[in-house]
Amino acid sequence: MNSVSSVIIVQQLHAERTLKPDLLAIEEPLETRIGFGPINDRQQKSLSVTMRTPGHDFELAVGFLFTEGIVQSFDQIESIKYCEDVGKQEEKENVVRVELKPEVKIDFEKLQRHFYTSSSCGVCGKSSIDSVRVVCQKLDDQFSVSSSIIHQLPNTLRKAQRVFEYTGGLHAVGLFNAKGELILIREDVGRHNALDKSIGAMLFKKEVPLSNYILLVSGRASFELVQKAAVAGIPILAAVGAPSSLAVDLAKEFGMTLLGFVRDQRFNIYCGEIRIKPN
Amino acid sequence: MNSVSSVIIVQQLHAERTLKPDLLAIEEPLETRIGFGPINDRQQKSLSVTMRTPGHDFELAVGFLFTEGIVQSFDQIESIKYCEDVGKQEEKENVVRVELKPEVKIDFEKLQRHFYTSSSCGVCGKSSIDSVRVVCQKLDDQFSVSSSIIHQLPNTLRKAQRVFEYTGGLHAVGLFNAKGELILIREDVGRHNALDKSIGAMLFKKEVPLSNYILLVSGRASFELVQKAAVAGIPILAAVGAPSSLAVDLAKEFGMTLLGFVRDQRFNIYCGEIRIKPN
Repeated sequence: MNSVSSVIIVQQLHAERTLKPDLLAIEEPLETRIGFGPINDRQQKSLSVTMRTPGHDFELAVGFLFTEGIVQSFDQIESIKYCEDVGKQEEKENVVRVELKPEVKIDFEKLQRHFYTSSSCGVCGKSSIDSVRVVCQKLDDQFSVSSSIIHQLPNTLRKAQRVFEYTGGLHAVGLFNAKGELILIREDVGRHNALDKSIGAMLFKKEVPLSNYILLVSGRASFELVQKAAVAGIPILAAVGAPSSLAVDLAKEFGMTLLGFVRDQRFNIYCGEIRIKPN
Repeated sequence: MNSVSSVIIVQQLHAERTLKPDLLAIEEPLETRIGFGPINDRQQKSLSVTMRTPGHDFELAVGFLFTEGIVQSFDQIESIKYCEDVGKQEEKENVVRVELKPEVKIDFEKLQRHFYTSSSCGVCGKSSIDSVRVVCQKLDDQFSVSSSIIHQLPNTLRKAQRVFEYTGGLHAVGLFNAKGELILIREDVGRHNALDKSIGAMLFKKEVPLSNYILLVSGRASFELVQKAAVAGIPILAAVGAPSSLAVDLAKEFGMTLLGFVRDQRFNIYCGEIRIKPN
């Protein structure tokens, strides 16, 4: 398992000290680059460096490009590989290069999103903050599940969390079908990465949009997670922890069902009650 | 309190549903801009948009500039204000403009860090990933505390967590002195923001480097938190949750004491044992 590393620690209990072996969740940078443009004039851009747990890197890169709105479908991708042009040997698996098909148009404004844009005041204010948002369609109400299914999800996810069990250090994301069966689980030090890996995996399987799935996240529900889920067409997002105000606002806007504090046979419905049958 | 908002939710317990009022932690974007350059040729750059809980925004902006290595001291800052040039009224308090003194030199390469850099392969790989790191000095071993002090910290922090109590939705960061007294607490939907707010607050008080403080974080310890703490000169970082592999590596490199799973009268020492007296 390359997602944990072993160390020797000093464990202190009250005033007692003992040396013990311990396992840590691995965190390493992953840089995602894209190659794009016409065949006779290919260009490259380094899009992001994210701190992630190694494993499922190609799914992470593809999921990231999709949930950030840089590609709209898996078909726009020509190839994915670790970049061989990297200096140190140990960094080779920390740089992924995604080759886009020559006809794919890149929205350079979107690439400016988040960070280090240069502009004059007035103009940039609104556009910078607005550009945090990715455009996506409103979800329909076709999919629904009974609350008894929802009650089961946290236990199912917890049982499948391999790395967390050893390290206590990872966020998990699970995709479930309407019967409450776990289709896929991904773990990562970053919850947005765990979600991008999950969505990336389903893109590889050509199963996006995920209109018939429930997403369960092990922590809190933020703006970012709701947005990524919405881009992938997920109708129900359930969180073991609390949602933020903006997560609720955005879920309402997209017509998504947002559940929080899903544990111990209870949960809160923040919006989209229509998709949850009472029993 | 502008860090929570109230909503009506549907609470489901087993098969029972009830309508209840609930409080959410507020999450909103904050854009940080800097003004820089000679008086007769001032320029502006938008540096980042972070999703944060409103409150202590100026501390957040200043803490961010400092822990990212964009400014090296509080003296380099001329003024801080909400940007008035912003379109919508409700967004005025979501854009902070930090005016740097004319003589401050900006490291534009540093501004490229993280995101959306454009370059040819080979060159950019190493430099992009390496540039995630901010340069900072190794910490000395002068400061130490007894383990009985460490055991008390989580309770003290928890009692002071106002917003978490209402919403369950916030990360907290506390700065403690050698006696275990809480000097400062900051809460935020993002733990890096909570830390930047804390460090920013101490910059305002002209008390950085924080060579005589213990930092306690309510969640896990990541690379990013260790790095920000190191830039501020904090010798002991204690986390209620698990550290990542890179957090431990970086703490060792900086000579920082890193503690994890600090709760229930126990903790793990991952490195820097010298600063923790056994009882």
